[in-house]
Amino acid sequence: MNACALPSAVGAELTDFFAARREPLAALDPTFADAVTALEQFVLRGGKRIRPAFAWWGWRGAGGDPDDPSAPGVLRACAALELIQACALVHDDLMDDSDTRRGYPTVHVAFAHQHREQGWRGDAERFGLAAAVLLGDLALAWADDMLRSAELAPATAARVAPVWEAMRTELMGGQFLDVLTEARGDEDPDSALRTARYKTAAYTVERPLHLGAALAGADHALIAAYRSFGTDVGVAFQLRDDLLGVFGDPAVTGKPAGDDLREGKRTVLLAVALTQADRHDPAAAATLRAGLGSDLSASDVDTLREHLRRLGAAQAVEQRITDLTRSGLAALDRAVLHPAARAQLCEMALAATERTH
Amino acid sequence: MNACALPSAVGAELTDFFAARREPLAALDPTFADAVTALEQFVLRGGKRIRPAFAWWGWRGAGGDPDDPSAPGVLRACAALELIQACALVHDDLMDDSDTRRGYPTVHVAFAHQHREQGWRGDAERFGLAAAVLLGDLALAWADDMLRSAELAPATAARVAPVWEAMRTELMGGQFLDVLTEARGDEDPDSALRTARYKTAAYTVERPLHLGAALAGADHALIAAYRSFGTDVGVAFQLRDDLLGVFGDPAVTGKPAGDDLREGKRTVLLAVALTQADRHDPAAAATLRAGLGSDLSASDVDTLREHLRRLGAAQAVEQRITDLTRSGLAALDRAVLHPAARAQLCEMALAATERTH
Repeated sequence: MNACALPSAVGAELTDFFAARREPLAALDPTFADAVTALEQFVLRGGKRIRPAFAWWGWRGAGGDPDDPSAPGVLRACAALELIQACALVHDDLMDDSDTRRGYPTVHVAFAHQHREQGWRGDAERFGLAAAVLLGDLALAWADDMLRSAELAPATAARVAPVWEAMRTELMGGQFLDVLTEARGDEDPDSALRTARYKTAAYTVERPLHLGAALAGADHALIAAYRSFGTDVGVAFQLRDDLLGVFGDPAVTGKPAGDDLREGKRTVLLAVALTQADRHDPAAAATLRAGLGSDLSASDVDTLREHLRRLGAAQAVEQRITDLTRSGLAALDRAVLHPAARAQLCEMALAATERTH
Repeated sequence: MNACALPSAVGAELTDFFAARREPLAALDPTFADAVTALEQFVLRGGKRIRPAFAWWGWRGAGGDPDDPSAPGVLRACAALELIQACALVHDDLMDDSDTRRGYPTVHVAFAHQHREQGWRGDAERFGLAAAVLLGDLALAWADDMLRSAELAPATAARVAPVWEAMRTELMGGQFLDVLTEARGDEDPDSALRTARYKTAAYTVERPLHLGAALAGADHALIAAYRSFGTDVGVAFQLRDDLLGVFGDPAVTGKPAGDDLREGKRTVLLAVALTQADRHDPAAAATLRAGLGSDLSASDVDTLREHLRRLGAAQAVEQRITDLTRSGLAALDRAVLHPAARAQLCEMALAATERTH
């Protein structure tokens, strides 16, 4: 399978998985089956399949053969990552009270809308909350079911389990840190880095690659190289996200300009800026602290952006992205892996760190 | 192990599981480790361990030998049910916005309180919501991890998986139906019964017993008897809950009198009462419909209770509990199972359906 075919192959696995559950769900209750259709649409709408792709190419790099009889099981295990991601997104949107995702209403908003439209009893927002909590839970439970449905050989399953488990715990931990650092107004760049490390790098790149390596039974050297590459490229990916959240073009990112500033997100970009400002420009520090997490006008956003540029924070983060991408690729360079996978992983690293949306 | 020793044996398994995770969690981040301590306390505080007990005695009834080397793994698999229950309770309390659970503040309330006490930024309720969503997710993910940590033989694990999977899906489905029937003001007794069937009977009795049977490799006849017993006794358990939610003594149940009426829960009790009232007493029907889900005074609650009694609904539900308990026990009577387990399951059936809290 070439790289372009992977997202649709992952989509086909997910389609199959949901199709096999339709009949038992309808037997349970048709209204619940309808609600799960909303989850299915949400999952099938997901485009880039970035986590399954890192897992798949991690497996290929470690010698996994797409023509081997074990390949379909591997593909299914990789695709199961998208159900964890569905839980993460549905619950994250609820926690952030976001209105849209992938151009559609978020799950809690869609169910609240249904409640209002039908003139049902009680509070529409509370109904939306309940639906999002339960469908996210279902996606998380089904991720495990889908991994089991890959029917991996016992030795393979035993290698995969600790990676799968670490990844899920790191995801919840990273999300918790994200919420906590924001609540605390934590300005330590190390806190922001740790959040990026777990919420994004471990969950999006490092552990999916590690999972692929475990699926293939890779040796320690390759696993270490993957993890080093995954951590660096994954953190760089989050740093790019932070820059786009402040400086990105709304027409390209699909998010309002300066949204991260209004939300008061505790990013590395911001922590670096505050550290610099405290040293060299106390007035700028005061402006930044007063503005963050408040209801900023467009011109307020421009002012804060200008400070972030002038303090050298944007440039410092750009430099860090460059350094991390370079060190990540260097770790891969030193490893022994299948050439097609090496090329693909390099390309994915650059796509993740140089993207504009 | 005798019946009295089981809850503490389950507690010990849960204590071990959390202890083994402490070090990796602290390495991830100490603040996240602290948050997980709140989850651990919540789990260890749980008392009756009713789901693990049904699973354990289901296994014993099917010939499981507590002195066999496989017994510790079985106990661990049974104990993992308590982590699913932790997710269900933490998320349910959030969905219902309940303040207390087991005499302590609920998770979302405790974290919102911490936020206010520390004077953190942003909305305290939103912080509490995020913590409850994430810790519930973690409990659900860890339930699967704990089941894996039981290291069941491959053939046993293969028998257990479909039961485990059906149970989780039925739980989410039952909870969704509960929320939906309440929103719709659904008055059909069959809807209320279906909710009780999945939310309570399948999840609390039927599937735990089925899981125990699968752990022991029971034959089809015993599985069918368990499922029949579990469904009947489990529905009776929920009907008892419904009666206690309206008529229970607050000093014994720990819940305010008539709480279910104020919340407007769509119970079988209520559906039966409305069906009767529509036939014979339209004025009572109007009073019931107007009062349900509204901010009732103590004397309003008394009035509604009186209607439920006078319409024969309370008595009809009592009769149904008696019938279901009897048919459930009859199914068990016809089955071949270990005498100690039979006695224990009978006792548990009576305790679940005749309880006062």
